[in-house]
Amino acid sequence: LAWRNGVSVTQVCFEDVEAAGRRIGGVAVQTPLLENDDINSLLKRRVLFKPECLQVTGSFKFRGAYNRLAQLSDAERAAGVVAWSSGNHAQGVAAAAAKLSIPAIIVMPSDAPRVKMENTKALGATVLPYDRKTESREEIATALSVERGMVLVPSFDDPHIIAGQGTAGIEIAAQAKEAGVTLDDLIVCCGGGGLVGGISIAMKALSPQTRVFSSEPMSFNDTARSLAAGERLGNAPDAESICDALLAPMPGKMTFPINLANLSGGFAVSEEAVKEAMRLAYKTLKLVVEPGGAVALAALIEHEKTIAGDTVGIVLSGGNVDPALYAEIIGGK
Amino acid sequence: LAWRNGVSVTQVCFEDVEAAGRRIGGVAVQTPLLENDDINSLLKRRVLFKPECLQVTGSFKFRGAYNRLAQLSDAERAAGVVAWSSGNHAQGVAAAAAKLSIPAIIVMPSDAPRVKMENTKALGATVLPYDRKTESREEIATALSVERGMVLVPSFDDPHIIAGQGTAGIEIAAQAKEAGVTLDDLIVCCGGGGLVGGISIAMKALSPQTRVFSSEPMSFNDTARSLAAGERLGNAPDAESICDALLAPMPGKMTFPINLANLSGGFAVSEEAVKEAMRLAYKTLKLVVEPGGAVALAALIEHEKTIAGDTVGIVLSGGNVDPALYAEIIGGK
Repeated sequence: LAWRNGVSVTQVCFEDVEAAGRRIGGVAVQTPLLENDDINSLLKRRVLFKPECLQVTGSFKFRGAYNRLAQLSDAERAAGVVAWSSGNHAQGVAAAAAKLSIPAIIVMPSDAPRVKMENTKALGATVLPYDRKTESREEIATALSVERGMVLVPSFDDPHIIAGQGTAGIEIAAQAKEAGVTLDDLIVCCGGGGLVGGISIAMKALSPQTRVFSSEPMSFNDTARSLAAGERLGNAPDAESICDALLAPMPGKMTFPINLANLSGGFAVSEEAVKEAMRLAYKTLKLVVEPGGAVALAALIEHEKTIAGDTVGIVLSGGNVDPALYAEIIGGK
Repeated sequence: LAWRNGVSVTQVCFEDVEAAGRRIGGVAVQTPLLENDDINSLLKRRVLFKPECLQVTGSFKFRGAYNRLAQLSDAERAAGVVAWSSGNHAQGVAAAAAKLSIPAIIVMPSDAPRVKMENTKALGATVLPYDRKTESREEIATALSVERGMVLVPSFDDPHIIAGQGTAGIEIAAQAKEAGVTLDDLIVCCGGGGLVGGISIAMKALSPQTRVFSSEPMSFNDTARSLAAGERLGNAPDAESICDALLAPMPGKMTFPINLANLSGGFAVSEEAVKEAMRLAYKTLKLVVEPGGAVALAALIEHEKTIAGDTVGIVLSGGNVDPALYAEIIGGK
């Protein structure tokens, strides 16, 4: 157990991430670490991409969800699970539940991307839509959990979820080593902070010389500001962004101390840089990346000069984007 | 040397493909072999994808071009190379020439996809546009070759090009083995037949139980018909297809005997199945695949019932597609 400013920062330790890696082995995809000559030329350094858009359900969220659900008791499995999510966590929980034959109910905003809602249903989960403006997803999910004895699966503030997301970090460290590369910097998208937190734990153990940064949309830069302030700060209640996967109101109670201890800082990016990153992924990497999945690449584009490393890792966290929006963005220039 | 119907079928042998593999090692990308749960469920078997859209220049063509250019003498390198291509071979030659500091001129149809023309120029090659309806690319390129002593780099009828494309097959066989999988069938897109020919040589040596098939657009099904007839047959001169990468008029003189000896048959697919395959790659695989790169997946969609294997490999050969066309296709349903 380590402490900083009187706050426990290791509710999740590296051994938990390693155990999660064993649990998801052979079930999750070990996504590759990709490098592209044209991107290297354009961004004037070596850039290594971890494309979690190639993960089961098209985002990293499956890692944490499976690690959580695989540890439920038989009685808990029989009662089922409930989660709320705008989309990627929904699909992650639904897919993990399907693989483990656990019933799942997902509370989703009625304006969630259609592709995410459809995929969640296709995976066999029951989708319960709610109105983001008039209803509380927490209340709906908690009521279900209490009434039916279902296990609530949080999207980031849970040690098993954080450990599961951290398995991407174990892979990054091993794959970089195999490629003969030492990452100077690693940039990871950040909503509630589970992915970057989990990855930071793995990197601290396996590649301690690598600086790990979060990246967020400018209007949801709560983690960047909180890291600078040393305390949890929230976003404006009326904030908006095309990054539907990254709309958490403030850093997590459990994720923030981890990130405060482990991260070298947080980037915030404009909506235009997000779109530019999606176009670059389309045109050069040939990868479909959703807005929230493109913020780490957007940080490298927009903050090129303040990122010191010669070798930078970028996590592309998801690729679930409605065709109409995608068509508009890639055609937009 | 092996013979069939009095025709030499091994102008390229497995040792040539192995040597090519050593030559392109560390220069070309070793693209991953990807599997996706949702695709497996949808197509009711295990499907393993070789995404050559992730290759240098966004298509497999770099493999053959680099293998050819790396073997030029100093005098030949100084004189430079000339090639004709609607796009992917153009970029492959341009990128290989840039890496080896060889001047390159590429003769391209003036109506080639913009992205392919721009990328070829960006790689430092000189692009010479010609009018497909009134001019002959062969004459223009041959004249340049004769006048300036430049080496002509064919897009498929060349043993070094075929051997280079075959390196994808070496990787597929090794990666399938590593994944503990034996491929029953492997479907590869086919224009002039260099990729499928080269891959067939590798598979015959490394995975002889795997049946290798070509796939073509219905209107350019020259290889399928030629394989059935046992002789080289051409396409209708006014044939059209959205698969701009696969518009070869007939099977190659050098590639056809290889394919006749090694392939188990050829599929032909509708334009609608090509678009459906592109949408599936977008929605589920999160990969950007161009029309010509999607014909092997289209064959699995359209001929699902005639493809016997429980485990099928699919080569996605390229991802260079103009945003406007891509937007239209993915939004089209």
